[in-house]
Amino acid sequence: MMALIQKEIRNNVGIITLDNPKKLNTLSEEMVNDIIKALDEFSAKRLPVVVLKATDGVKVWSAGHDVKELPRKMRDPLSYYDSLERVLRAVEQYLGPVIAVVHGSVWGGACDLTMTCDMVIADDTASFAMTPAKMGVPYNLTGILHFMNRLPLNIAKEMFFTASPLLAKRAQELGIINHLVPEKELLDFTLDIAKTIMSRSQLSVEVIKEQFRILSKAFPISPADFERVQGLRRKVYDSHDYEEAITAFLEKRPPHFNGQ
Amino acid sequence: MMALIQKEIRNNVGIITLDNPKKLNTLSEEMVNDIIKALDEFSAKRLPVVVLKATDGVKVWSAGHDVKELPRKMRDPLSYYDSLERVLRAVEQYLGPVIAVVHGSVWGGACDLTMTCDMVIADDTASFAMTPAKMGVPYNLTGILHFMNRLPLNIAKEMFFTASPLLAKRAQELGIINHLVPEKELLDFTLDIAKTIMSRSQLSVEVIKEQFRILSKAFPISPADFERVQGLRRKVYDSHDYEEAITAFLEKRPPHFNGQ
Amino acid sequence: MMALIQKEIRNNVGIITLDNPKKLNTLSEEMVNDIIKALDEFSAKRLPVVVLKATDGVKVWSAGHDVKELPRKMRDPLSYYDSLERVLRAVEQYLGPVIAVVHGSVWGGACDLTMTCDMVIADDTASFAMTPAKMGVPYNLTGILHFMNRLPLNIAKEMFFTASPLLAKRAQELGIINHLVPEKELLDFTLDIAKTIMSRSQLSVEVIKEQFRILSKAFPISPADFERVQGLRRKVYDSHDYEEAITAFLEKRPPHFNGQ
Amino acid sequence: MMALIQKEIRNNVGIITLDNPKKLNTLSEEMVNDIIKALDEFSAKRLPVVVLKATDGVKVWSAGHDVKELPRKMRDPLSYYDSLERVLRAVEQYLGPVIAVVHGSVWGGACDLTMTCDMVIADDTASFAMTPAKMGVPYNLTGILHFMNRLPLNIAKEMFFTASPLLAKRAQELGIINHLVPEKELLDFTLDIAKTIMSRSQLSVEVIKEQFRILSKAFPISPADFERVQGLRRKVYDSHDYEEAITAFLEKRPPHFNGQ
Amino acid sequence: MMALIQKEIRNNVGIITLDNPKKLNTLSEEMVNDIIKALDEFSAKRLPVVVLKATDGVKVWSAGHDVKELPRKMRDPLSYYDSLERVLRAVEQYLGPVIAVVHGSVWGGACDLTMTCDMVIADDTASFAMTPAKMGVPYNLTGILHFMNRLPLNIAKEMFFTASPLLAKRAQELGIINHLVPEKELLDFTLDIAKTIMSRSQLSVEVIKEQFRILSKAFPISPADFERVQGLRRKVYDSHDYEEAITAFLEKRPPHFNGQ
Amino acid sequence: MMALIQKEIRNNVGIITLDNPKKLNTLSEEMVNDIIKALDEFSAKRLPVVVLKATDGVKVWSAGHDVKELPRKMRDPLSYYDSLERVLRAVEQYLGPVIAVVHGSVWGGACDLTMTCDMVIADDTASFAMTPAKMGVPYNLTGILHFMNRLPLNIAKEMFFTASPLLAKRAQELGIINHLVPEKELLDFTLDIAKTIMSRSQLSVEVIKEQFRILSKAFPISPADFERVQGLRRKVYDSHDYEEAITAFLEKRPPHFNGQ
Ligand code: NI
Ligand code: NI
Ligand code: NI
Repeated sequence: MMALIQKEIRNNVGIITLDNPKKLNTLSEEMVNDIIKALDEFSAKRLPVVVLKATDGVKVWSAGHDVKELPRKMRDPLSYYDSLERVLRAVEQYLGPVIAVVHGSVWGGACDLTMTCDMVIADDTASFAMTPAKMGVPYNLTGILHFMNRLPLNIAKEMFFTASPLLAKRAQELGIINHLVPEKELLDFTLDIAKTIMSRSQLSVEVIKEQFRILSKAFPISPADFERVQGLRRKVYDSHDYEEAITAFLEKRPPHFNGQ
Repeated sequence: MMALIQKEIRNNVGIITLDNPKKLNTLSEEMVNDIIKALDEFSAKRLPVVVLKATDGVKVWSAGHDVKELPRKMRDPLSYYDSLERVLRAVEQYLGPVIAVVHGSVWGGACDLTMTCDMVIADDTASFAMTPAKMGVPYNLTGILHFMNRLPLNIAKEMFFTASPLLAKRAQELGIINHLVPEKELLDFTLDIAKTIMSRSQLSVEVIKEQFRILSKAFPISPADFERVQGLRRKVYDSHDYEEAITAFLEKRPPHFNGQ
Repeated sequence: MMALIQKEIRNNVGIITLDNPKKLNTLSEEMVNDIIKALDEFSAKRLPVVVLKATDGVKVWSAGHDVKELPRKMRDPLSYYDSLERVLRAVEQYLGPVIAVVHGSVWGGACDLTMTCDMVIADDTASFAMTPAKMGVPYNLTGILHFMNRLPLNIAKEMFFTASPLLAKRAQELGIINHLVPEKELLDFTLDIAKTIMSRSQLSVEVIKEQFRILSKAFPISPADFERVQGLRRKVYDSHDYEEAITAFLEKRPPHFNGQ
Repeated sequence: MMALIQKEIRNNVGIITLDNPKKLNTLSEEMVNDIIKALDEFSAKRLPVVVLKATDGVKVWSAGHDVKELPRKMRDPLSYYDSLERVLRAVEQYLGPVIAVVHGSVWGGACDLTMTCDMVIADDTASFAMTPAKMGVPYNLTGILHFMNRLPLNIAKEMFFTASPLLAKRAQELGIINHLVPEKELLDFTLDIAKTIMSRSQLSVEVIKEQFRILSKAFPISPADFERVQGLRRKVYDSHDYEEAITAFLEKRPPHFNGQ
Repeated sequence: MMALIQKEIRNNVGIITLDNPKKLNTLSEEMVNDIIKALDEFSAKRLPVVVLKATDGVKVWSAGHDVKELPRKMRDPLSYYDSLERVLRAVEQYLGPVIAVVHGSVWGGACDLTMTCDMVIADDTASFAMTPAKMGVPYNLTGILHFMNRLPLNIAKEMFFTASPLLAKRAQELGIINHLVPEKELLDFTLDIAKTIMSRSQLSVEVIKEQFRILSKAFPISPADFERVQGLRRKVYDSHDYEEAITAFLEKRPPHFNGQ
Repeated sequence: MMALIQKEIRNNVGIITLDNPKKLNTLSEEMVNDIIKALDEFSAKRLPVVVLKATDGVKVWSAGHDVKELPRKMRDPLSYYDSLERVLRAVEQYLGPVIAVVHGSVWGGACDLTMTCDMVIADDTASFAMTPAKMGVPYNLTGILHFMNRLPLNIAKEMFFTASPLLAKRAQELGIINHLVPEKELLDFTLDIAKTIMSRSQLSVEVIKEQFRILSKAFPISPADFERVQGLRRKVYDSHDYEEAITAFLEKRPPHFNGQ
């Protein structure tokens, strides 16, 4: 069968290309497993930097979660061992920087994936939409933190509440895009940054990445608060509207939410 | 239909008596709702102290959760809005001290309930068994904290790992029983303590109880750690062994665990 | 007597208009109570989005705290149950997004109020001044966090240390204004965003707002550190300068601070 | 004027003797200042161990706070810079162990003081009563933590809710008395322990004491939770009952609490 | 060469016996590696319970760290990857309960090891001495927490400050010994407890152990506080006294500490 | 000998000028001590605002740590009592705002110093490079937090991973420069801001600065997580690459890193 991603090593930089454009590079379990496997291989070779991109020229960098794979009602759609969560952790735990190179629109779980990457290089077609409220999904706390660590609270909220795309220029101004470059220069520009990083002490970069990871998660809350959040989230994924959103999406019609 | 609890107000002390001895005072949803309702009534009258006891002379103070009401596989049996969790919070949030008076054995969720009460007065028939490992249940963090706030770590672990009863004398020595008194004096002794408390400033007692509540929950962990715990717990309640334990209990036979 | 606010429901969006321009829309206890009451009514109807604006065309969106209502020396001016704190919590705890629409200058407690709203839509007359240091007030920790969750630390400090207004253009660049739009389009633009939000799953939006609330407060410190902060703050509100600031303000003259 | 304490250095051990038996060794501001001064002197000499005792043979080791010095209504009676808080911190921050030697009864703030000492050696006349609820005082969080770090939660609550004395034998069993020895041997026994400690590495003991201090305070809570606790406490010290308790005490009559 | 430990599987219980009595079962790097290897093997077989004991009849269960292996001055003797720390983590992370069976005296790092085990079964020859202050060692925070999770603060401090042994009877009373049994019955009694544990749901026990592990470490402090502690600890291991303690020990003479 | 800094008081504003341009204003221990001494003097006079600048017209504001003073292998180069850490704390703990005025490039420890200042005023020659990865240094957690409190996570990471300078315009856009002004106006503009601050209540400003300090450090992590980070950092400063980086720097040649 066709590979869903391409992987390559160029000048010691690992390059992963999402390559299932017909399915809008949906983060299906299969594609996620391919990405994780590639990261494991690069890690075994201790490649200092990884680039995560999509096939050149696609309109949609990735459409996020494969809705067909979302659990039906009564089950948490963002559980710790679900595929999206596993790939986010794989990126966070990769030994060196993972740089997202973004051309086109990024949706939902894929948006969380780019926010989990250590840096984002994009061109002006890039846009970022955080879509759980479209799908009736109660998002998880760690995912929300990815946005709070990058954006003013009110901007992060707007992304989640509206599910509207944040366009490249504003994203660059706010800083979630590190560099906005012309489409043609995207990869070369990124590889130049990778080259700079690789001229530094890899040991030092590795431990600093780990320190950022730990600090960016240091928003501790009491078990009582967490269990309450989990109880609230369960009410959402037990709801009519969660089921309706998935059904409507698969039937390619707008959902009829009733707030219950 | 027959009431599952008795409630009474004596000298301004609210008294709740678990009174379903045929069902071993199982904390069924119905009984839990009755307890919460009684606490609400006492709270509306702002009774300074509540006593929680069982019918005189029973062998089993309460057998804990009603196993018939536990969710089948694939659902968290200790979710935030489940009946046991609701009654534990009702006790913790009652405006004044709730004192458990214990004669007989206390099992599982009822054991957590007595540990959630502000004080425990018992006679020498009392014993406390923490039984989730018998039922294949992954316990929740807030419940485990109730024990860690009272017992050396190694004793709390023994209770959970063995599910064996901790007997009255050892429980008193370790301090989880405030006072060990003869069966006949249980209630009078307790009402004397209540009387002492009621001679103090109710306002002061109320805020101090709330401070204890907040500090006893102040074991904050990161959302990442919590989501991992929740993922591990889900593996348990999705398991064969969880289903088998419930089935076996209802069929009154020992479970055949296979560790999966 | 005249109402201090106007309230309206348009296409299921709750609209609150501060409407006491003669008093510069000061957040007096009376106005605060009106806002909270309106939010309660909207909440009872479960309106998914609320808009908080001022009378059209005012120069001052709101001048913040009513200085006449500040406690004299020896009392904490930002205690938990004071009116400003109550309205901030009412906004944070409103079930859906509350969007501030800002034309004109915003001062002190009103500035904190806009930063507590989930989003801010403004025109180019908007400016935001954080004025406690002008009034000799020791601010509270939760209020400071509202700014830290939105701004680089050095910018938030400048706002508090100088009490100078942050102008619309810079506020938009830094991200505390979500959208900068022409005055005439302010409300329509905002209602369009509300419409988008209302096309999403209300259940999902509600729980995500609650998750943001909890995470944005997850800066835990030890009771010892907090009691020290409270002790330091008490020295400030016991000081000559605090008393002098209030007196000077009411006498419409500049304060004579002596640093004690 | 007469000194309120005696201080002495014996074999390099600093010894502080509370010596105002007519006033029941009340922790008046003056006595507190004397204790702190003695600790400062011992610290300047870097004495490795300090012993804190009362005049031999007194019935009351110390009666705690001087009620006459408690602030009237509208002011926090346990503020960070109040005398009791200052002496507790002085003990916690003393460079080496401070050992309380207890003969007789210990009340209120003095009870907190002994719990703040690093160790307690007592004879069988010792008893410990935690009395804020008698005086209508809302206790502070750090003070409550001193008890939670030593006792099962239900025992600590009983002490605060009843204000009844915990007697020597039970205190020893529960572990808040390190050693129970005959009255005659109290000081020699304690000096023997001091001698053992002084045979160890002072540097190591000093840093370990500091580590214990930090960890015993590591119950972090969010600023929002703390400000709520402070708001609740303020309601108590603004109340009729707080004022009444102080008045009644000074008039040597029982208080008439009305719960408001 | 002779093995330093014996390992055995009896009725599915893994048994590790420290067996280097000539060296007082010192926790040398070699012995630690053997223990970790045994735990790994038992883990690969998913043995539900492990017993950790010493050769029958020894006077010293284990003398703790091998002083010869302690780093000289200028290096942290309790760094994360040092052998003692590795074995403590291996026990904490073992998938099921690890039960220490103690006959004889336990010193220093071995004392920490028994406190890290999930339960302790001992006979009346058992004693527990925490000796870092004897060796001039600045202990680490995680190690101190093992004691704070089990003992009243003042008792834990006495252990560290005096380095004196806590005897079996008091240890049992305080709860750090789960059961005190006659020497002859030590192993059978322990295997009976293991049998009970193995009749429970292994999945449930595993996740509950992990929950205890996470909660028992939930004493978060700020990076600033930690870096300060580390700075203080470095002063100690850079000191004359640390070097002197090691030299004196190896020369079998008492150390001459000068507090510097 | 020549002073390394100039200090001056102008209109009650303390001004410190780094003045060792031949050594690129390296933050040598001597210069650090001079800065701390100046801050102490200004603090003794309770100057409300301090300005920290470099000699006019230098190309390099400061080159950061003096590499010659970095410890060789086997010692933490960023320990709590090292000179850089001491000066960062002195700035954070200064009683009023410390404003950095930046003309020219800022490297490494000096970059951390400007991020630790309360505000930054710069001209368009300013640039900020975070260089530990160039020197093989494992940075410390508190230092990383200075950047996380000001910048989107991905931008902070780019600074550390690439060690490339962030230029004035982008720095201003992202907000870490408060104001970008022409070189000639740098000081006057800054003194104007100082004047505004000094017209506010100094008491209020002081306590608010302290509150910002505490909240900006409120990223608590467990001792276990911290000790792991410290263990990882130790691997880096024990490495070949750390030693090589220092040697290469002193020999004025590029380092040959091998990742070990
Ligand atoms: Ni149960
Ligand atoms: Ni105000
Ligand atoms: Ni050791």
